Amino acid sequence: MVDVCPFNYRYGSENMREVFSRDSMLRRYVQVEAAAMRGLEAAGLAPKGCWEEVLRCGSELRPEDVDEVEARLGHEMASLATLLGERCGECGKYVHLGLTSNDVIDTAWALAFRDALRIILKRLEGVIEFLASLAVKHSRTVMVGRTHGVHAIPLTFGFKLANYVYELSRSYERLCEACGRVVKCNISGAVGTMAAWGGKGLTVRDVAAEALRLEPHPITTQIAPRDGFAELLADLAILASQLDRLALEVRELSRDEVGEAFIASGEVGSSTMPHKRNPTLAERVSGLAKVARSFIIAGLENIPLMHERDLTNSSSERVVIPHAFLTVDQALIDAEAILKHLVVDEEAMRRNLSITKGAVMSECVMVKLVLKAGMPRHEAHAALRKLRDECIARGEDFLEAVRKAYGDLLGEELGECLNPENYLGSAESLIHAALKHWEGVKGRCEGCWR
Amino acid sequence: MVDVCPFNYRYGSENMREVFSRDSMLRRYVQVEAAAMRGLEAAGLAPKGCWEEVLRCGSELRPEDVDEVEARLGHEMASLATLLGERCGECGKYVHLGLTSNDVIDTAWALAFRDALRIILKRLEGVIEFLASLAVKHSRTVMVGRTHGVHAIPLTFGFKLANYVYELSRSYERLCEACGRVVKCNISGAVGTMAAWGGKGLTVRDVAAEALRLEPHPITTQIAPRDGFAELLADLAILASQLDRLALEVRELSRDEVGEAFIASGEVGSSTMPHKRNPTLAERVSGLAKVARSFIIAGLENIPLMHERDLTNSSSERVVIPHAFLTVDQALIDAEAILKHLVVDEEAMRRNLSITKGAVMSECVMVKLVLKAGMPRHEAHAALRKLRDECIARGEDFLEAVRKAYGDLLGEELGECLNPENYLGSAESLIHAALKHWEGVKGRCEGCWR
Amino acid sequence: MVDVCPFNYRYGSENMREVFSRDSMLRRYVQVEAAAMRGLEAAGLAPKGCWEEVLRCGSELRPEDVDEVEARLGHEMASLATLLGERCGECGKYVHLGLTSNDVIDTAWALAFRDALRIILKRLEGVIEFLASLAVKHSRTVMVGRTHGVHAIPLTFGFKLANYVYELSRSYERLCEACGRVVKCNISGAVGTMAAWGGKGLTVRDVAAEALRLEPHPITTQIAPRDGFAELLADLAILASQLDRLALEVRELSRDEVGEAFIASGEVGSSTMPHKRNPTLAERVSGLAKVARSFIIAGLENIPLMHERDLTNSSSERVVIPHAFLTVDQALIDAEAILKHLVVDEEAMRRNLSITKGAVMSECVMVKLVLKAGMPRHEAHAALRKLRDECIARGEDFLEAVRKAYGDLLGEELGECLNPENYLGSAESLIHAALKHWEGVKGRCEGCWR
Amino acid sequence: MVDVCPFNYRYGSENMREVFSRDSMLRRYVQVEAAAMRGLEAAGLAPKGCWEEVLRCGSELRPEDVDEVEARLGHEMASLATLLGERCGECGKYVHLGLTSNDVIDTAWALAFRDALRIILKRLEGVIEFLASLAVKHSRTVMVGRTHGVHAIPLTFGFKLANYVYELSRSYERLCEACGRVVKCNISGAVGTMAAWGGKGLTVRDVAAEALRLEPHPITTQIAPRDGFAELLADLAILASQLDRLALEVRELSRDEVGEAFIASGEVGSSTMPHKRNPTLAERVSGLAKVARSFIIAGLENIPLMHERDLTNSSSERVVIPHAFLTVDQALIDAEAILKHLVVDEEAMRRNLSITKGAVMSECVMVKLVLKAGMPRHEAHAALRKLRDECIARGEDFLEAVRKAYGDLLGEELGECLNPENYLGSAESLIHAALKHWEGVKGRCEGCWR
Repeated sequence: MVDVCPFNYRYGSENMREVFSRDSMLRRYVQVEAAAMRGLEAAGLAPKGCWEEVLRCGSELRPEDVDEVEARLGHEMASLATLLGERCGECGKYVHLGLTSNDVIDTAWALAFRDALRIILKRLEGVIEFLASLAVKHSRTVMVGRTHGVHAIPLTFGFKLANYVYELSRSYERLCEACGRVVKCNISGAVGTMAAWGGKGLTVRDVAAEALRLEPHPITTQIAPRDGFAELLADLAILASQLDRLALEVRELSRDEVGEAFIASGEVGSSTMPHKRNPTLAERVSGLAKVARSFIIAGLENIPLMHERDLTNSSSERVVIPHAFLTVDQALIDAEAILKHLVVDEEAMRRNLSITKGAVMSECVMVKLVLKAGMPRHEAHAALRKLRDECIARGEDFLEAVRKAYGDLLGEELGECLNPENYLGSAESLIHAALKHWEGVKGRCEGCWR
Repeated sequence: MVDVCPFNYRYGSENMREVFSRDSMLRRYVQVEAAAMRGLEAAGLAPKGCWEEVLRCGSELRPEDVDEVEARLGHEMASLATLLGERCGECGKYVHLGLTSNDVIDTAWALAFRDALRIILKRLEGVIEFLASLAVKHSRTVMVGRTHGVHAIPLTFGFKLANYVYELSRSYERLCEACGRVVKCNISGAVGTMAAWGGKGLTVRDVAAEALRLEPHPITTQIAPRDGFAELLADLAILASQLDRLALEVRELSRDEVGEAFIASGEVGSSTMPHKRNPTLAERVSGLAKVARSFIIAGLENIPLMHERDLTNSSSERVVIPHAFLTVDQALIDAEAILKHLVVDEEAMRRNLSITKGAVMSECVMVKLVLKAGMPRHEAHAALRKLRDECIARGEDFLEAVRKAYGDLLGEELGECLNPENYLGSAESLIHAALKHWEGVKGRCEGCWR
Repeated sequence: MVDVCPFNYRYGSENMREVFSRDSMLRRYVQVEAAAMRGLEAAGLAPKGCWEEVLRCGSELRPEDVDEVEARLGHEMASLATLLGERCGECGKYVHLGLTSNDVIDTAWALAFRDALRIILKRLEGVIEFLASLAVKHSRTVMVGRTHGVHAIPLTFGFKLANYVYELSRSYERLCEACGRVVKCNISGAVGTMAAWGGKGLTVRDVAAEALRLEPHPITTQIAPRDGFAELLADLAILASQLDRLALEVRELSRDEVGEAFIASGEVGSSTMPHKRNPTLAERVSGLAKVARSFIIAGLENIPLMHERDLTNSSSERVVIPHAFLTVDQALIDAEAILKHLVVDEEAMRRNLSITKGAVMSECVMVKLVLKAGMPRHEAHAALRKLRDECIARGEDFLEAVRKAYGDLLGEELGECLNPENYLGSAESLIHAALKHWEGVKGRCEGCWR
Repeated sequence: MVDVCPFNYRYGSENMREVFSRDSMLRRYVQVEAAAMRGLEAAGLAPKGCWEEVLRCGSELRPEDVDEVEARLGHEMASLATLLGERCGECGKYVHLGLTSNDVIDTAWALAFRDALRIILKRLEGVIEFLASLAVKHSRTVMVGRTHGVHAIPLTFGFKLANYVYELSRSYERLCEACGRVVKCNISGAVGTMAAWGGKGLTVRDVAAEALRLEPHPITTQIAPRDGFAELLADLAILASQLDRLALEVRELSRDEVGEAFIASGEVGSSTMPHKRNPTLAERVSGLAKVARSFIIAGLENIPLMHERDLTNSSSERVVIPHAFLTVDQALIDAEAILKHLVVDEEAMRRNLSITKGAVMSECVMVKLVLKAGMPRHEAHAALRKLRDECIARGEDFLEAVRKAYGDLLGEELGECLNPENYLGSAESLIHAALKHWEGVKGRCEGCWR
């Protein structure tokens, strides 16, 4: 077969591919038709036991069978209904009775979302917990914090990672909430009124939903509301962008000039430069995040459909939904691999802390000047800024210059500013707060995907 | 002043403009500096009572004062801190001590989000409740349901509107949840470790947060995590897209050929065609939705910042955050006006129901053929499809043709399919389910914006 | 094989799939390696005739062969170079000498762009020319023009279509120009300086480019500049959006209430409503356009790479480039099918022209009042607007009311406003201007894709 | 006035603000009304000389005057036409005769585009030429090239900059081409047929266009085709993204660990860390690029309007067009400032070249092993890769290890690989090729904005 799609062979796990394979989608369609039959039975609109017959005869169908009929009818779901009708004997008479295509499709999407979210959230949990363990391990590994890409003040590598624990736990929570809005049964007929089932529509729907272990939407127009699909794509894009932040962190820390952390790998870096060791895994995460960010556009545009629905969501969803999940799936796999193969060079961290010749302790000195020497904060700030400029101009050590200028004023107090390890504030408590937050989120999210 | 921005004079309410005016933002900065001072006091790092002094002397500042210092220092927040330092007497010494700019900016954003969400959610509540009242009022106003822009089967106008009640209540719920993630205090110092406050950082933060009636983020990097900002922009874009769906509905229903509903207005429709009555209000909602959908891109790109933060989120947030809220604010105002001025032409609805000469009842007939005459569903479907094609070719009435073909078989059963009013299924129950869902959402969302 | 991608079986032509198949991409990689070898030969850096040997031994490679080595080396292009090195005998020694991976990849992209644009522009030409023929055929088919979805003044169906001729010819021109910027050879070595080839780099590059019938980029960083990729994705998104406009036109014209044009089809419209005839082909075009609009985001984000390049463009391009071309390919195929199967109901067009009871001629009357009766335009506008409101309120015929009010004043002049066919202005000339414009564009675009 | 928009006071030049100020837009509307009057005169539909009267009496109008009438009529352009009608005496009768609002609005947009592009292209020219001069100046300033953020092989700073010259010249060319498609006159009446002007529409249009020094669109639907607006927004987003690439380059080069270039500035870097020197100007460019990338979404969505047009483009264009131009205007101003204040530390460049202990010369050695010692390229690559890994493991100098391993084999040849200055290939020629390309582009673009 001609294959044009890297998600078929390059990105995403086999498990996630399985969720969105043509076979699995067909399997789910049959499952929904059977569940609806169970509803019809409960409502007295079909003979008892037909649902099992639908499941059975449906299990023999292959996507190619549907393709064949679709080539004639030009309608995927009508083709499936016809096939089941023809193949399920007496029960076939009642197959798809009163159902519209999107009763089947959207409920199958809900089942697929449940399967896909199960994978995503499991992986995300793994990433968060590994980050948490690294955060604890490195809770005292001192390094420089950087803002604007420029040295700020010290922190610990564990503290840095604990922030990712917090941030990713927010995504976990968000996906957990979105799950509750999208993993829902949509069985309501041609325009959502359940007209074909006389007054027994609620029975049909509720029994079918129960059979699928889903809650029903309280009302729909024919299709499940697309704000949920957009929300899911947005949440996936946000998660991918957070992993992008982690990947960017690693890419920057592994520059030759920085060298504080790198991804161990035996891979070739360049096809022409034998020496190269590139952070390609991290670059791939950043690249996939761009793809995830793109899909949200189609997701949002699918909300304003005409009247009870038009079909313009259909083709775009066939593309963006599987691809979005596979994109984030791969990004999570890569993120976990990055963390597992991350080599931390504590020596480099220490070395880099001193390359600004003490300037990273300027805030510490400023605070002393205010609290111990009674200088107004803004004046202390201005004075130290000036001192720093002079040090750079003359190539001098900043703390040395501080000693000269303020040693008499500050006395022993200054000592505390000599050592970055003394200037970590509440970093350790905050690491534990982040971990505790994650435990809370995990505990609260009972999880519609379970 | 040269004004290039339609949000200053054309789109958005005065209230929302007020939330994001330069004055208000400055007011909030001062508020946060004062709250932080209260935290410093509690931690024993500043004299008691200074926070009131900061509030007082800060209240006299104008944006232009900050501009003036910024022209020299090139840094907005450092300029504000300097001004407060100079103007707040003895207390001025301690202003901004250990705070970094984004402690002030991000906490001010949180306060602005609270104010802005209060407006948005209040308006959204108004729109939903008005929709709910219309849904009840029109719960028996029969009209045709349309899928693909084409006549499907009957429903009621109230049922149509009840779907919007459900969908918009999902946005209400989403914004309520997002609120809990973004309306949070971020006071943690240069790289989030609270180093400047020795071991007393948690006290500083918690007291400040309490003073502002905010929960603190458990940990931050210097800045509040940007996944929250992206989530907010996504939720606003989703809401705008839902209003776009409502607007598109009205635009289509008010076509000259459809004429089922239109927006009453005394406005000029065209500058050259005196007769025109255009659904401009609804078109504006659709137009603004495009703007809201755009902003999410900047929101997502702001997540992967470098290390503890870089500044690339700053300029884009100054643009997209106020503009996004004002966009949705105007869309909600317009949506409410559309609903309030919506004239429903029940006569046109009835008339249109019959223009397909009974074909909209084809599903009804099909179900009868299955349940009463024992015909397999897929065969009934195929037979009626053929019949319909013949009717179109010959210009015949569909139900008449059905009577000829299946009258004997179906007998009196057919009568039920003659009248669209008999084919509304559970529409009325579903309307009430939608309204009940909304009440549930409203009750559950305790609302961080309150 | 598990298949998750609808572009493999549902959207896009076999031809376009072939362009982006794994096999074709590998074929092109080998072609570029051979061309580069030819350059090395010309520069005296490899033995004469090796390029043919590379072509030959490369022709036996399969994607799976590369996968196998890549599993070990973790680098696709290094794996290919190694395979060629091992399999091409003595010539193998020189394979890939001084080339970096993106010399091969980006030049292969250029070749793929040429092939893909050839298909796209051929199809686009077909659509434009069919539109042009329909425009001429219907140059006197009068119908109502609509703005805001509301009746404006008359035009002809041919005039309506001629606008699409003009608009699509602009896309043709744009793609033609983009082609000149992206179908270019990129052979410049590790960081673009051609260092590995001593002073003979320009010879290597120029001979290779000549062999591939490509112009070289004058300078590159290692990779071809990504502004070109973004431009291409933007141009494809614009084209898809124009087809979306055409599709939306057809969807609206085929509403039951409008009925002026519809797509003939024997397909099933709904799986539960036998009577349905849906404009699904047009809806698919609109749906695919959303996908095309999404991909531009990844395209734009791929421009700001770090230094000489980072790898974050790689994964996203593997996804969005083939998918974008396949998306637009299908949209063009569908657009052509829509036009070829479009049934125009001239009777319905005539009927609809009169449903506003003459109001569509209000501008005509206004102009008469100004030019013949000397009434100021704005007063005539206001007066007729008032008259129209009264007509609607009383259900009266507008032209009748005009006759009553202004018959004496206007006399025979009014007659011209009775018949829409008299109010077509320069429609016919403008149709021909549009066709002429297209001929000009086609003539001017010599076409890098040829 | 409450001001919520940073483009009013923070981003963009006064000149560009002036282009899109409410006053300027009103001025252009009047200008178009006058030009159209001139067309009416030429067609014998209005008295001679009226166009000057319209210009004169229109010059007295203020935006507030229009607001006042609009509050009553609900239509901006009808309000303007009424005001001119009332105030221009006898000529007032003919004002706006046969014009539709978008004849005025879209032609005014074209005039605004011309003014805005003039500013953008002038600034872009300035940036390119400054880059070109720096490229020449630094054509021998050797530094390391970096791919994946990792050391690759040497290049010169001038070569690096010359790539930007080439890339930005592509944007110049693109904007030049887009200009030809969007700076066009749209005067065609209610649905584009020019019906109101009898058979004299082409005269009206052509005379008006001539008066405004514009070419007319050959045909329109009422509005100018929106593919042009989308193209313009795409081209601006691409340009902004290229500047983002330049900004990212500077941000990375100015890291404390790299220190090869930084932006000289006396500004405060941090409000709490006195020592900070941040690349804020470059970060602002990157931030603004995100905004520019966002706007393309609204631009693309504005293409598929209904029938002859709907109004959903209107509100979004009022937002995104001025804001997009102001965004790129500021990004260009900042880019120029960055380059003008860029301090290049050649010493740091030299120092960094050696931090990988010679590994950056691995390709050089590999080529020697192939060309001089007859080793197959892929074997040489593998051998050197292994050597490099060993060097890293043992902390050894790479070139020293090479000498040990291959000194006998390569002899004096190895000498050439000791000095990065010997390994610059055709860098200097390529710089001149880039500059020549720019001269060619500049010469060819005759420029519709002139």
